Amino acid sequence: MNNIPALNTTQACQIQEIIDNKTKPLGSLGMLETLAKQLALIQYQREGSQVHKTSTYSKLTLTKPTMLVFSGDHGINEEGVSIASSDVTSQMVVNFLSEGAAINCFCRINNIAMAVVDCGMLSALDKNSLTRDSSVEFFEQRLGDGTENFTKQAAMSLAQVDKGLFYGQRIIDKYRGQGCEVILLGEMGIANTSSASALMASLTPFSVEQCVGRGTGISDQQWQNKINLIIHANRRVLPVSLDRLTKQHIKLLLCEFGGFEIVQMVGAILSAAKHSMVVVIDGFIVSVAALVASHLNVNVIDYLVFAHVSDENGHKRLLSELKSMGGGQPLLNLGLRLGEGSGAALALPLLQAAMSFYNDMESFESAGVTV
Amino acid sequence: MNNIPALNTTQACQIQEIIDNKTKPLGSLGMLETLAKQLALIQYQREGSQVHKTSTYSKLTLTKPTMLVFSGDHGINEEGVSIASSDVTSQMVVNFLSEGAAINCFCRINNIAMAVVDCGMLSALDKNSLTRDSSVEFFEQRLGDGTENFTKQAAMSLAQVDKGLFYGQRIIDKYRGQGCEVILLGEMGIANTSSASALMASLTPFSVEQCVGRGTGISDQQWQNKINLIIHANRRVLPVSLDRLTKQHIKLLLCEFGGFEIVQMVGAILSAAKHSMVVVIDGFIVSVAALVASHLNVNVIDYLVFAHVSDENGHKRLLSELKSMGGGQPLLNLGLRLGEGSGAALALPLLQAAMSFYNDMESFESAGVTV
Repeated sequence: MNNIPALNTTQACQIQEIIDNKTKPLGSLGMLETLAKQLALIQYQREGSQVHKTSTYSKLTLTKPTMLVFSGDHGINEEGVSIASSDVTSQMVVNFLSEGAAINCFCRINNIAMAVVDCGMLSALDKNSLTRDSSVEFFEQRLGDGTENFTKQAAMSLAQVDKGLFYGQRIIDKYRGQGCEVILLGEMGIANTSSASALMASLTPFSVEQCVGRGTGISDQQWQNKINLIIHANRRVLPVSLDRLTKQHIKLLLCEFGGFEIVQMVGAILSAAKHSMVVVIDGFIVSVAALVASHLNVNVIDYLVFAHVSDENGHKRLLSELKSMGGGQPLLNLGLRLGEGSGAALALPLLQAAMSFYNDMESFESAGVTV
Repeated sequence: MNNIPALNTTQACQIQEIIDNKTKPLGSLGMLETLAKQLALIQYQREGSQVHKTSTYSKLTLTKPTMLVFSGDHGINEEGVSIASSDVTSQMVVNFLSEGAAINCFCRINNIAMAVVDCGMLSALDKNSLTRDSSVEFFEQRLGDGTENFTKQAAMSLAQVDKGLFYGQRIIDKYRGQGCEVILLGEMGIANTSSASALMASLTPFSVEQCVGRGTGISDQQWQNKINLIIHANRRVLPVSLDRLTKQHIKLLLCEFGGFEIVQMVGAILSAAKHSMVVVIDGFIVSVAALVASHLNVNVIDYLVFAHVSDENGHKRLLSELKSMGGGQPLLNLGLRLGEGSGAALALPLLQAAMSFYNDMESFESAGVTV
């Protein structure tokens, strides 16, 4: 996590010039222009390519976009923090593998390859019962049979955190080796908004109440209970001011609050950023993984595209915090609160549109337009 | 324009039940759920199909999505209301036909067929100079050599308005005959924000200042001049309270303020709604055409999908006005202010995503998920 370069922005002006010479009023493609610039900076850094003349610049590519859905179970679910039982995590993973969930639909329609990673569900899947001809890849990278209940003890050990970070890195290496240039992140884990809220409350100036939302749709009473449980668990953690947090502190927070899928996503984000890949961040849980990764190395933030702002209570605040660390604006605001990577999958066509105008729009000169 | 049926909503509850049985928390796909419901209502009305049982409902289709870009020139441009000369309208149309503009990129990447309609540019294109192997169709439906300067006289005659409405209807008939189920609307016409602002000011409670924006990027002084010109032109029109406007009044407003592309888009919207097609509305100019069409027959609004809210000054207000008439929320908010249909083209993947989850997501029962 140390050797992640900040994005080299020395070519930013030349990239902006390319964009400004396109046949359109200056700035009229709004956020797509910012996005195209980010994609160009990332790619030119990855390839070490130079924009010498704006007429012969390198075209952008977004090869083999791949959705990785990290799943895991959470001991805290025994406290009634979700409307669903933990069995639903693996039931939904089976649904992903038989291609019947929302994320399957969105990946299919947008030509995104998809893989599911069992990071530690309550129990391993019975491989014999799975659909054999699924286009969705499946990986076992289990860190345990669900985390411990973090209201009573640490969710996992430091060894599990380190292993999880390694597993996350390893799967990125695999897809990078296959030519993947864009990783989209999603997750599945009943009660994982509790883990994510606890991490957010520890790593931002926001109160627990401001970080805790309704997840899949809990009642007022359950919501208050969820807040109280997290406030209580938070008391175990020695308060350290945010500007003094060390990497070791961050890892200990991951131990305390989990979850297995969050840790592996942190490892995946660090690894993808290290190799100058584009990382598309989904909703609340994935954004918390991005927050943790950015605290481990702030350079990470340059490689992240924030797909959407969800309806989950803390997400808007979390995105504003990530923005203060250098993050971009979320692309979509559709009132989603599903997870799975659904918002990230929906945002991919906007990345492709940004790439497309950057590559293929004529300049004023070449098109003979006289503005 | 009389025989446009309001959308039959008797099957709305059954459609909602289908959506609610999908393997996701209730309502968790946000605006995509509203969109899927609208698409289903439109299609079932078009096909006269019945949802008898939720397990055997008809699947949605969005066959042959087609972007129609209506172009025209505006006499008012001699007053300096734009940064560009009127020549740029036809230069950009040539750019569309040689596939080098933003709208070409976005249609290409999202598999949208594209056609350009000359509704009355300053002069007809020299057909010999055009790219021969363009995938973009081109139609001449000219109502004149640009409109008159509406600060001095009516932009066009009532005969031109009627002909324009007919032309707009005719091109929809053509694409409908080819199996097109989704029409996306875009426009090109230097100074057409002036026409659109004048129409909006006449058909909404908003002041001229609230309706006039910067278009392609005019200065403060040009903006004030544009406002003054429109206020002045507005004085020609006898004030009629909005609830007493007749169809004849609306047509006279089109005569006064133009433009040729706006009139043809109004005709296209009326015709598409009449045949229960889905109509995707782009930015400010197309939204004004939607406003005019909705004043001619309010049932039109049920068939419109609002692609995005742009950065043009009056657009947000205009969408709120259309919402009060029954319109939906805009899907995207990307700070676009380009026109051409760019926002509509970018929104199509969201319609396809809504279709896809409605068609292909498993229900709780079929997937064995126990929430």
